[in-house]
Amino acid sequence: MQLTAIGVIHSPYKQRGDAPRQGRLSDNELTLEIYLHFADALKDVTRCSHLIVLYWGDRANRETLQSRTPFSDVPVGVFASRSPNRPNPIAFCVADLIRQEGNRLVVRGVDALDGSPLLDIKAYAPAIDAIPNATNGHIPDTPDGIAQGKTPHA
Amino acid sequence: MQLTAIGVIHSPYKQRGDAPRQGRLSDNELTLEIYLHFADALKDVTRCSHLIVLYWGDRANRETLQSRTPFSDVPVGVFASRSPNRPNPIAFCVADLIRQEGNRLVVRGVDALDGSPLLDIKAYAPAIDAIPNATNGHIPDTPDGIAQGKTPHA
Repeated sequence: MQLTAIGVIHSPYKQRGDAPRQGRLSDNELTLEIYLHFADALKDVTRCSHLIVLYWGDRANRETLQSRTPFSDVPVGVFASRSPNRPNPIAFCVADLIRQEGNRLVVRGVDALDGSPLLDIKAYAPAIDAIPNATNGHIPDTPDGIAQGKTPHA
Repeated sequence: MQLTAIGVIHSPYKQRGDAPRQGRLSDNELTLEIYLHFADALKDVTRCSHLIVLYWGDRANRETLQSRTPFSDVPVGVFASRSPNRPNPIAFCVADLIRQEGNRLVVRGVDALDGSPLLDIKAYAPAIDAIPNATNGHIPDTPDGIAQGKTPHA
């Protein structure tokens, strides 16, 4: 299973430690540059207020199976967390689409490091994607709670 | 960028056309079998009521850039839709976790075909993932509306 970059992410976050704990916690704007030979797939994208953005965590550790979270000193499995480190480092963010400039999308809510390969963009559909009452036992229920976590993923 | 299967999906949907339009529209149970050498990454997964499941659409058409949706005869770009056909066919579902049986997770809400390679599992966190008021201009706001779409993706 071989991935192909559909584009590249231009981000103010230059290295690990620069990025917010989750993209949705920051108002920073990032630009998703879609390579021109994929630009036809952007037709009608501005109908979407929010987009699912998948990108490749090219600086992640693929050997990590458990890690501490910002909310506890006890390691949890990466499949029960949002650690960037995991066997297939496909990062997932829900982005606010601010505007389209040709083959570039200006977005908020993405935590990618600069230069990350872009893998996919999908319409966010609240009827199937929004589960406000979901629980997970360790990630706080509110953005403020997430922002107050004490340590980075390790 | 090379992916590795972390497991395999056992599904009642044996071929294209068997699967529901979106996994969340069906009560069918599927089983995510995680390969034993990745099982340590499942620690604490039962804390999660819902999981983000990424799998590989191994029967998708990677050349498709625009397609009709069930809701209109006018093609839209695949990056503005949920078409399974796209340059990197990484399918995304929010699954209800029903129970864990060792290295197997029994879930609802996944639309994978039987035998699909499993790529990643993440905790669903409503504080960052649930945007109930998002809009996208063509996918209906309700599960019933989605179910009533008239044609499959083509």
